[in-house]
This record gives sequence, C-alpha cells and structure tokens, in this order.
Amino acid sequence: MNGLALLDYASVLVFALTGALVASRAQLDLVGFAFMACLTAVGGGTVRDLLLDRHPVFWVGQPDYILIAVSAAVLVFFTAHLVESRYNWLVWLDSFALSIAVAAGTGAALSLGQSGIIVVLMGVTTGCLGGLMRDVVCNEVPLVLKQGELYVSCALAGALSAVLATKFGLEGLLALGLCALVCWVLRAGSLLFGWQLPVYKARPPRQ
Amino acid sequence: MNGLALLDYASVLVFALTGALVASRAQLDLVGFAFMACLTAVGGGTVRDLLLDRHPVFWVGQPDYILIAVSAAVLVFFTAHLVESRYNWLVWLDSFALSIAVAAGTGAALSLGQSGIIVVLMGVTTGCLGGLMRDVVCNEVPLVLKQGELYVSCALAGALSAVLATKFGLEGLLALGLCALVCWVLRAGSLLFGWQLPVYKARPPRQ
Amino acid sequence: MNGLALLDYASVLVFALTGALVASRAQLDLVGFAFMACLTAVGGGTVRDLLLDRHPVFWVGQPDYILIAVSAAVLVFFTAHLVESRYNWLVWLDSFALSIAVAAGTGAALSLGQSGIIVVLMGVTTGCLGGLMRDVVCNEVPLVLKQGELYVSCALAGALSAVLATKFGLEGLLALGLCALVCWVLRAGSLLFGWQLPVYKARPPRQ
Repeated sequence: MNGLALLDYASVLVFALTGALVASRAQLDLVGFAFMACLTAVGGGTVRDLLLDRHPVFWVGQPDYILIAVSAAVLVFFTAHLVESRYNWLVWLDSFALSIAVAAGTGAALSLGQSGIIVVLMGVTTGCLGGLMRDVVCNEVPLVLKQGELYVSCALAGALSAVLATKFGLEGLLALGLCALVCWVLRAGSLLFGWQLPVYKARPPRQ
Repeated sequence: MNGLALLDYASVLVFALTGALVASRAQLDLVGFAFMACLTAVGGGTVRDLLLDRHPVFWVGQPDYILIAVSAAVLVFFTAHLVESRYNWLVWLDSFALSIAVAAGTGAALSLGQSGIIVVLMGVTTGCLGGLMRDVVCNEVPLVLKQGELYVSCALAGALSAVLATKFGLEGLLALGLCALVCWVLRAGSLLFGWQLPVYKARPPRQ
Repeated sequence: MNGLALLDYASVLVFALTGALVASRAQLDLVGFAFMACLTAVGGGTVRDLLLDRHPVFWVGQPDYILIAVSAAVLVFFTAHLVESRYNWLVWLDSFALSIAVAAGTGAALSLGQSGIIVVLMGVTTGCLGGLMRDVVCNEVPLVLKQGELYVSCALAGALSAVLATKFGLEGLLALGLCALVCWVLRAGSLLFGWQLPVYKARPPRQ
C-alpha cells in the first residue's frame, strides 16, 4: 500500500469514529452509527474525487474503506459509554481526522498535477466537508463555523505548507507530513490556548 | 420501457409526493412544491449516478422524470387539504418510496456489474439521500435519524436480500421485487409494531 | 473573455458578497468569510457542471473565480460595519446574484445543446443551489423557502424566457440578458410590492 492510500485509510478511520460519536449523541441504533460513520468518513474525499473527475471514487473502487468505517462504528457503539466526555473525544478525534484528511486531499491533488491553488482547495475540501455533512445532518453546530476557533484556517495553513514545501523540493510524503503537522498544531493550539483570528464584530455605522 | 426504468419512475413519483407534502407543511407556493418534489424525487438517484460516473444522470437524459415529479407536486397542492393527517401520509408514502428507490438503486448498480458491497451501498444511497435532502432543506427531523425506528436498516436489509438472491440465481426483477418487499415489510413493522434495534444509551462510565 | 464567462464571474462576485454577509452575521473570522463566500459563489455552478459532466468544473479549470470570491470576502470583512442593515444588503445583493447566475446556468446549458427542459432546470439549479447551501450551512431560513415570496419562481420565469427567446431566434447574449431581467424584475417586485403566488393553506378536510 502506498503512502497516499494509507493517509486515506487513516482519515476514514478517524473521521468514522467522530461520525459514530455524533450518532451516539443522537442515540441512534447500530445501523445509524454505521450510516453516520460512513457519511462523515467518505464525504470530503468523495466531493474531492467528483470535483476532480477522479473515477472510480476512492471507496467505490476500494470498498475496504467502508469496512473500516463500519468497524469504527461498531467499536464506538460498544465502548462510547466508557469515556467521560464524548464531546471532548469528538473534538479531539476530529482534530486528528482533519489534519490527516487535509494531507490526503492535498496529496491526491498533487499527484494529479493540479495547480497550487486547486491543491490547496482540495486539501480544505477533503478536510472540512465530511465533518460539515456530519454536523448539518445531525443538526449540531458545525465545527467549521464555531466562532472564535481556528478550523478552516488550520486546513488552509496545512495545505499551503505542503504546496510551498513541494515548491522548495521537499519529497512527497514529507510534505504531506508537514501539512498534517501544521494543521494539527494550529487546531490543538486553538482548542488548548484559544488561538484565534480576529472575528467580525459589528461596529456602529460611521456618521 | 424496461423494469429498471419503471422502478425509477415509480420511486420518482412517490418521493415527489412526499416532497410536496413537506412543502405543504412549510406553506410554500406551487413552484415551491415543484422544487421540493423534484429535489426529493431525484436527489438519491442523482448522487448514485454521480458516484458511479453514470452519464447522463438519469433525469438529465430523460426529462420525463421531472414532468412526473412536477405533476405529483400539482396533485398534492390541490388535494392535500382533503387528507386528515398529512404527517401520516408523508411517513407511509415515504415507506413506499424508500422501498422502490432502494430496489431501483440496487438494480442500477447490479446492471453495471458492481461488487456486492457497492451494490448494497448504492441501494441505500438511492433510497435514503433524497429524503434526507428534503428533511435537511426543510428543517424537519430527518426520518433517517428518527430514534427508535428502523429506516437505514430497512434499506440495508432490502439491498442485501437482492444481492444474496442474485448470488443464488434469482432472476433480475424478482430479486429487486424481493428487495422492495423486505425493505417495506421491515419499515411497516417498525411503524406499526415498533420494531427496532437496540439504540445507544449512555451508561455511566465504569469505575 | 466571452459573454458566458463574464456572467459566471459576475455571479461569483455577487454571490460571494452574500456569503460573506452571512458569515458576518455568524461573526466568523476572515478565513470563515472566505469559506462561506466560496461555498456560496461556486456551489450552484458546481452542481450544474457535475450534473452535465462538464469537466473541468468551471473554477477548477480557472481558479480566478476563487480569487474573486476571496476578494469579495475581504471587502465585506472590512466594510460590512459601514452599512445600516446587513440583512437588506444581503437580500438585495442576492436578488442580483440570483438573476445573473440563472442567466449563466441557462447559457452554459444552451451552449451544450441541451433540451429546453434541461436548460431551464440548469438555470434554476445554478441560481438557487449556492444560496441554499449558504443558508443550510449557516442555519438561516433558506431564501428559497421563504413563505409568500417569489424566489424559485423568478429563476424559473427567467430561464423559461431565455429558452423561448432562443426558440424565436433571439441571439445568445440578448436572450440571457432578457433572462436576468425577467428574473430580477420579478424578485424585486416580490420584495418591494409583495408580489406572490397563492401559497398552500390547509383547509379543514371535507366531510
């Protein structure tokens, strides 16, 4: 198995765990867990593949991804009661999934020889859309839109690092590792230390 | 017209009725009814066709589907006040639409020679995603996620039956009929007799 | 640059402004503004291109669109506090974006030689889906579904005018100009004078 496929597998696994955790918060049954796990796990990568006209879509060509997502759902169904704060687990697992998925999306677009801006956008798309679908379908406040937290910014910074590193001659997987690292450090910093960008605050209109 | 197309037409018709019923609950105008009917009716099959790179998408190649969905919207606009409980009609029509759409999606994937797991996933996708779009857009609680009811499970069981029946040599349309029957019986049983799978219930963490 | 591309650019620009305004109502940071601007700006046209199997998707082939959307986001981030009612600006900018996007979608489908009904549907899809994604993701009441206002109807009437005008021999860009005009006049009339179609009202069931 090559490095790119490994990244895809890892991102599917971790995103599936977050999807199943959201299903546990909605008190679904085992099939509902599997449904949410699959939607979350393959959502972002599927949009990426459709946008790039990359067929078969990664999990249609290789259904192992689905088995991994379903296994993650089963695992969470039987163990989620063991953890103290499911929301904490959700947010932290999501930070790993985001970082890996951004690297996977960036790598896929790089391997197709896309231009820098498209590579960055595919990284952000792959990283952010699966979780966005999960949150919209389950009516949670999308992590993407949480006020005063870095999220899309982390994906953007990670994907940009990979593109720049590649321009400076860093070899494939190293660039993607850097991408995941940058993304995760920013996200973790935002969660732990409240790192954020200035948010829009309405001021009274002038005059 | 062959059997597969007939299934697609039937699923479009019945899903369109449910979309229009949701539009009536949101008190839209006739064009709003048609919009929701079309979105619900072709949503699931469209995702299936995009995932399988099956072009033209079924309703782009054959716009009759749209005319059927619009007719269903007109019918509901002028008759919905005649029924006593629109929600009951919605849920029961949805159970028929689900069953037919799962069979249609399963049949389409079988006819493309996809592997068993992809056939099952396409059945579930075609069956569940149109209704999910309808509910997310209109801000109803998605039927897919209703706690303590079988829904995705019915789609899964139906699609699995079709795949198994085909493996044991049952001829095409019979296998799809079995698929629809299994799906509908489970859904009806869940609605009438409360059949369900155990749902996730948080227990206090151990220790 | 030809007329069709110009329409796409204009619709991206104006829809991006509306996406950024919604981001300002959710008090996001600058990257959040850019994310919402891009989603809104390219959402409808992306669905159109995927449905018609038109690759590369318009903004994947020509990333300038993204730069325009991001610039619009930056502009709104630094100036939105200057206006008195952001909601008014949102609704009126959206009316322009809708009209231009319907014309762009109609033109794209016409240029591919699609049948009349598909041309109309692509106009409506391109016009309505970007704003719908914006509203669903940000949990605003979708403009598409606002009771007692014309919205999808305007898109439909505009796209129909273009198809009819083309049948009667009107040259390409003129037909698209007519399309945008019809759409915008209806939308503006609905906003200013309350033009609407009769909405569904439940009456007591007969007998």
